Amino acid sequence: MERPGKLLGIGVGPGDPELITLKALRRLRAAPVVAYLAAKGRKGNAFAIVEDYLSADQLLVPLVFPVTTEHLPPPLCYERVIADFYDRAANSLAGYLDQGREVAVICEGDPLFYGSFMYLYDRLAGRYPTEIIPGVCSLVAAAAVLGAPLAYRNQSLVVLSGVLPEAELARRLDEADAAAILKLGSNFAKVRRVLAQLGLAGRARYVERATMHHQRSLLLDDIDPQSVPYFSMILVPGRRWRG
Amino acid sequence: MERPGKLLGIGVGPGDPELITLKALRRLRAAPVVAYLAAKGRKGNAFAIVEDYLSADQLLVPLVFPVTTEHLPPPLCYERVIADFYDRAANSLAGYLDQGREVAVICEGDPLFYGSFMYLYDRLAGRYPTEIIPGVCSLVAAAAVLGAPLAYRNQSLVVLSGVLPEAELARRLDEADAAAILKLGSNFAKVRRVLAQLGLAGRARYVERATMHHQRSLLLDDIDPQSVPYFSMILVPGRRWRG
Repeated sequence: MERPGKLLGIGVGPGDPELITLKALRRLRAAPVVAYLAAKGRKGNAFAIVEDYLSADQLLVPLVFPVTTEHLPPPLCYERVIADFYDRAANSLAGYLDQGREVAVICEGDPLFYGSFMYLYDRLAGRYPTEIIPGVCSLVAAAAVLGAPLAYRNQSLVVLSGVLPEAELARRLDEADAAAILKLGSNFAKVRRVLAQLGLAGRARYVERATMHHQRSLLLDDIDPQSVPYFSMILVPGRRWRG
Repeated sequence: MERPGKLLGIGVGPGDPELITLKALRRLRAAPVVAYLAAKGRKGNAFAIVEDYLSADQLLVPLVFPVTTEHLPPPLCYERVIADFYDRAANSLAGYLDQGREVAVICEGDPLFYGSFMYLYDRLAGRYPTEIIPGVCSLVAAAAVLGAPLAYRNQSLVVLSGVLPEAELARRLDEADAAAILKLGSNFAKVRRVLAQLGLAGRARYVERATMHHQRSLLLDDIDPQSVPYFSMILVPGRRWRG
């Protein structure tokens, strides 16, 4: 029996290919098998970031999401469809690992910060040697682009999904010293309304595709909710502490 | 009048020198002036991380903290002492910027994620061209070392300072889907007590000096509170979503 290969979760950073770490790049280049998640019909964001770093002798394994929305017509169920997809994807990677080959799964941002890699990790890390190479996550990339210190001293920082119901968003934002709201997309109008109701609109800052091509930062009032992509974020930086 | 130099805030990552990004390294090496914060009598954590990347023709500007504790004997006041220190430090950097020299301030982890650089940024960014290079922050470094997915799907993630009063810690942890507690040090025993009271001790994971030399991960129960350094973190990962 072959000694099993290692599963690597490699954070490749938020978008700018130069924001990959030296370690991620070294380990990526040495990996015989490179896997990545991609939406149907797209080449995948993580792949696009590292494309120029790969060589022809590396085996590429795209793992293509079967659906592009969480709202599926019955009898389809998003949770079931996705769980089946990750089961199959994990099995496919297990095949390479069983052959003793190292498998690098490349992840936009950081592998364990709201990344889809977590679902592969949960299925495989108990069975195979596993290593995570952390990456620059979207949270600090957005702060850098906006020039927004996130939280001062003993302030608490809350990371929220824009998908949350309006009342929960309002409650959590009201209690936070500082906040970041991810997964905006179609939730943008709701989030902007909540921020306005809480008197936080003035402090809030918006950026989309931070450090990627077509990066854009706008005032909250100037944004057309129809135009907001998934890769966007609102930061509500903590109140300045003079330090 | 000379055109002013640019202020660069460079995240050099959490400790392992290989966890610096390509961009941070390129910009660091090109900077004529490299400044960094350091505790009295120490060489500074950010400096130690990049020391081997620097060359002899770069001017090093250590900014040495005047105090090592927040508890000062009267009539000294921590807030005043620190504000004066940052005022002087910012003025010293302004001197180089006024000469048209680029000044890179190197920051452990990320410059705007609870970094002391924020206090220099707030004093200088309005007056000089400024650019932030984000880095791998301690939060995701700890998650990588522990192999702990931070938060799933629409879970909220709260970053808390261990300095907070016990009741506030309890309230915020009780509401969080997932949490990270920084600034443990002498606050460790209090934090562990709160986690136990909330029934979160089993899910909590501890790591100190993640990705640095002498990195150590222990079970909460096995930790001697006297031994806990400042660079330590407790993660309470979100409950697994099957994905």
